[in-house]
Amino acid sequence: MTGTLFGIGVGPGDPELMTLKARRVLGTVPVLAFPAPLEGEGMARAIAAPHVPAGKVEIAIRMAFRPERDDAEAAYDAAAAAIAGHLEAGRDVAVLCEGDPLFFGSFIYLLARLGPRFPVEVVPGIASPMAASALLARPLATLDDSVAIVPATRAEADIERLLALADSAVILKVGRHLPKVRRVLARLGLEHGAVVVERAGLDGQRVLDLDAASAGGVSYFSLILVHRRGTARP
Amino acid sequence: MTGTLFGIGVGPGDPELMTLKARRVLGTVPVLAFPAPLEGEGMARAIAAPHVPAGKVEIAIRMAFRPERDDAEAAYDAAAAAIAGHLEAGRDVAVLCEGDPLFFGSFIYLLARLGPRFPVEVVPGIASPMAASALLARPLATLDDSVAIVPATRAEADIERLLALADSAVILKVGRHLPKVRRVLARLGLEHGAVVVERAGLDGQRVLDLDAASAGGVSYFSLILVHRRGTARP
Repeated sequence: MTGTLFGIGVGPGDPELMTLKARRVLGTVPVLAFPAPLEGEGMARAIAAPHVPAGKVEIAIRMAFRPERDDAEAAYDAAAAAIAGHLEAGRDVAVLCEGDPLFFGSFIYLLARLGPRFPVEVVPGIASPMAASALLARPLATLDDSVAIVPATRAEADIERLLALADSAVILKVGRHLPKVRRVLARLGLEHGAVVVERAGLDGQRVLDLDAASAGGVSYFSLILVHRRGTARP
Repeated sequence: MTGTLFGIGVGPGDPELMTLKARRVLGTVPVLAFPAPLEGEGMARAIAAPHVPAGKVEIAIRMAFRPERDDAEAAYDAAAAAIAGHLEAGRDVAVLCEGDPLFFGSFIYLLARLGPRFPVEVVPGIASPMAASALLARPLATLDDSVAIVPATRAEADIERLLALADSAVILKVGRHLPKVRRVLARLGLEHGAVVVERAGLDGQRVLDLDAASAGGVSYFSLILVHRRGTARP
């Protein structure tokens, strides 16, 4: 009997925004794996901390903040090999992910390596667009609204085409791409409807308008919520 | 001291996919409100049931399945008035929503009516795109992927323009709009990458390919996940 590979969404930062199921699985699996910086425990492990009993085997998947592709592949290959050893021995392994495991989560790279060989169960988590909307108490979409989600790392023209079509939009991973995104918002007349949320749900969380964000800069862990239309009745 | 209006995401259906925070709030607020059909308790109330202690004041916001706009407005107006009475008396009120309260949630209509007058706190929930991705163990987006979310109720041309641009897409509220959506997918060469998920996380949950879905039809509570690109490495 092989073990099961669990992908666990730990949510946006507040440990209370984990699901009951995530907490249950964390309580029972013998092995945890999680993305981590070169030193220290990393965000996902920190979020899960209040729900992890002592005595787990822990696998830190270490890489630099923006790793070279070869380095990232090597780290995931090594982690997959270590995890496979536990699964083959019949031990369940839970991989922690900030937010949701399948929404820009690093779990996807382990799933690609291990999914064909082992049973997989994914426990979804609260993703950053929902966390940011909740923080602002501002609707993400209603009735027949369309929503575009696009990383700010994309080409300016790609972002512009999507934002021109969608009723609301979430632009992820803003960081140093803010000037580019802002040009797009200005051309589309969407600056007024845009709010910048940095580190939603984490220590140091900030809500900024575009001017304040542009003046001081924002981190990679920022998103912009954009609304074209007002909230429709009913 | 007025009470606080809580919007509570109860997630996609499995009561274990509620957050710890949602459960805590449900345990403590004296008043619950929830959308409900003309008879019976409704889906959000059923999902929350294991976490609701006895003795709450309960406000069922009743309307037909696809209400006329006037009827829906009247039901939300009446519910807002009843909720306002409790808030003015200093009692917190939790409004239950399937999935996430601000992602196509009916909480949005109460927020529009009550948000300007009372303190609001939103507890995000697991939304259907994440629930369906988890069920399939299939990535929703990775690296610099863009994602379009669009209700199938939109015009065929609107859906086509968005799907032509985005790397992955979630088409919500499919139901009787399936033939229209299928025409779009066929024109864009995306039929192969499409999976239909009906009632994700609920009793009677089904995963279908387009042929099976077209043959038997699907309910309004169905979505289609569409992937244009493979999962990028790392």
